[in-house]
Amino acid sequence: MIKTIEYIDGVVRMIDQTRLPAEKEFVDCRTIEEVGNAIKTMIIRGAPAIGVAAAMGVSLGADSIEATNFEDFYRELEGKCDRLGQSRPTAVNLAWAINRMKQVTQDNKSLPINELKSRLKEEALTVLTEDITTNQTMGEHGQTLVKDNSVILTHCNAGALATAGFGTALGVVRAAVNAGKNIRVMANETRPFLQGARLTTWELKEDNIPVKLITDNMCGFFMNKQEIDLVVVGADRIAANGDVANKIGTYMVAVLAKENNIPFYVAAPVSTLDLSLASGKEIPIEERSSDEVTHINKKQISPEGIEAAHPAFDITPNHLVTAIITENGIARAPFTDSLKALANQK
Amino acid sequence: MIKTIEYIDGVVRMIDQTRLPAEKEFVDCRTIEEVGNAIKTMIIRGAPAIGVAAAMGVSLGADSIEATNFEDFYRELEGKCDRLGQSRPTAVNLAWAINRMKQVTQDNKSLPINELKSRLKEEALTVLTEDITTNQTMGEHGQTLVKDNSVILTHCNAGALATAGFGTALGVVRAAVNAGKNIRVMANETRPFLQGARLTTWELKEDNIPVKLITDNMCGFFMNKQEIDLVVVGADRIAANGDVANKIGTYMVAVLAKENNIPFYVAAPVSTLDLSLASGKEIPIEERSSDEVTHINKKQISPEGIEAAHPAFDITPNHLVTAIITENGIARAPFTDSLKALANQK
Repeated sequence: MIKTIEYIDGVVRMIDQTRLPAEKEFVDCRTIEEVGNAIKTMIIRGAPAIGVAAAMGVSLGADSIEATNFEDFYRELEGKCDRLGQSRPTAVNLAWAINRMKQVTQDNKSLPINELKSRLKEEALTVLTEDITTNQTMGEHGQTLVKDNSVILTHCNAGALATAGFGTALGVVRAAVNAGKNIRVMANETRPFLQGARLTTWELKEDNIPVKLITDNMCGFFMNKQEIDLVVVGADRIAANGDVANKIGTYMVAVLAKENNIPFYVAAPVSTLDLSLASGKEIPIEERSSDEVTHINKKQISPEGIEAAHPAFDITPNHLVTAIITENGIARAPFTDSLKALANQK
Repeated sequence: MIKTIEYIDGVVRMIDQTRLPAEKEFVDCRTIEEVGNAIKTMIIRGAPAIGVAAAMGVSLGADSIEATNFEDFYRELEGKCDRLGQSRPTAVNLAWAINRMKQVTQDNKSLPINELKSRLKEEALTVLTEDITTNQTMGEHGQTLVKDNSVILTHCNAGALATAGFGTALGVVRAAVNAGKNIRVMANETRPFLQGARLTTWELKEDNIPVKLITDNMCGFFMNKQEIDLVVVGADRIAANGDVANKIGTYMVAVLAKENNIPFYVAAPVSTLDLSLASGKEIPIEERSSDEVTHINKKQISPEGIEAAHPAFDITPNHLVTAIITENGIARAPFTDSLKALANQK
């Protein structure tokens, strides 16, 4: 199994996703600030993986605090958490993981500081193992929607590399394969960061699952030729009404799927739901550096001085979403009801 | 004005579009075979530019024939034309230009071979100058559809570089600017060959027309944000019913435009109409090397051994096309009638 992230002996070790597949290098983070930087620069990416990294980062941050009373300890931890929380704005799993760690801190305020630090380390490891279990359960639910001999289109990388392991969208693929179904994946390359071309192809190849790479603008062509049976993507944040924030281009895929009567599924853990937001309009969309558009592999593709835009995510409105697959079951429209029911389930 | 292609003293000189914008190099072709190779390898590309290159190529081919009687001359010329005609399958302008040159040959069969060769050279130069005039007239028609202060989205490069000059889609942009309108362009980068990122931005910058570069998968995001007022693209072949073959991704743009109630215009000369084909289903779609998808700037982006697809064009069905702009006027649905009327006009 691909180890996206590990936490051993005060070191958070991540596979460097900016360098895959050409180089398989690891980055070691020893402070919460290093974890925040790894999230910001996309050494680790994918909403659930960001959540796991954040939990581990908070544990590293706690370890570095020298305060001996809870109030001082918590005040310092909160400051560190606030800064970590600003590393990327769209994926809600970042805030979710930080809040969970803060809650555990509060729940254990009576413990001696050293024991509290151990408790936080334990919690971070629980976030990791829970994420894998969550994805496996999500995959089981999701694979019931996948017929034998299906071609599944996916966008970006919602795989093992986007999570602690197994993946969300690719977890559905893996669960369908494990159930004995003959599945082929078509992977959008996903400009500008090329998560599809670099990461999705890489991890599916590692698992011997057949994958064909296409440029993002080809997926409509293949849908129109009826060569794609269903779409499964991940999510970075899902509003109460079922509007889905996910990697830029997801909206394009969803519109094309609707035009061609192809089911469009979103696979995401309950931690990706943000029921505090009524609709996707309230989800902040990260604007990243335009250099990531004008340069590929550090080489400039456009003429000097050309302006470029780089919204890193888009919002897919709920009417384009066939169903949302979570570890607690499958939600369908009206999502305001179905998502609330799944979120409250245990 | 950008000189995409010239024909002087037995040399067809083209700006090398595989190397722009990093390098501004020219390629000299001295034989019809060299012209065919330049078309195949996309040193020159864009349906009208391919037509101009083909006419010049036929002239070079004619010049190289040593036969002294018309029958032998024509037989040899036809063989050369057949091979040239196979260089790229989708753009009909290639066949159109070759047929025009063959027709001129037949119409002047009574001339001495040397004079016939001169006549063919003259015709090739006429194809070039006519193309520029055609584009300017097309631009005049097209710009009436463009309101002041518009943002125009375009896909691929349908500009001066895709023609003998001025451009088809970008001809509409230039004509609107020349009419005093404040126009901004949003350019899809157009993977895999990056015509938008490399060529459209380059030629608009040369003309000081504001342009913003986006990845193909971002155009839906900006349409949905109501930041795009209209779409104008070129075409490689248009069937009798108004189905449009154009660069891969055009179909995606058209579906997104329809979803967001944005007009979708196609600008193409009458030479791009193929009324012999009832619908786009009959248009051959070129499949190019998958290396062009798996590699960018000769550097591999995906893991070794990953399969990729590379359809170079797609078909936009007529119901997604708001209007087709030609030098003879603007065609609207039902296209079977309107295109026939424009084609027969002169």
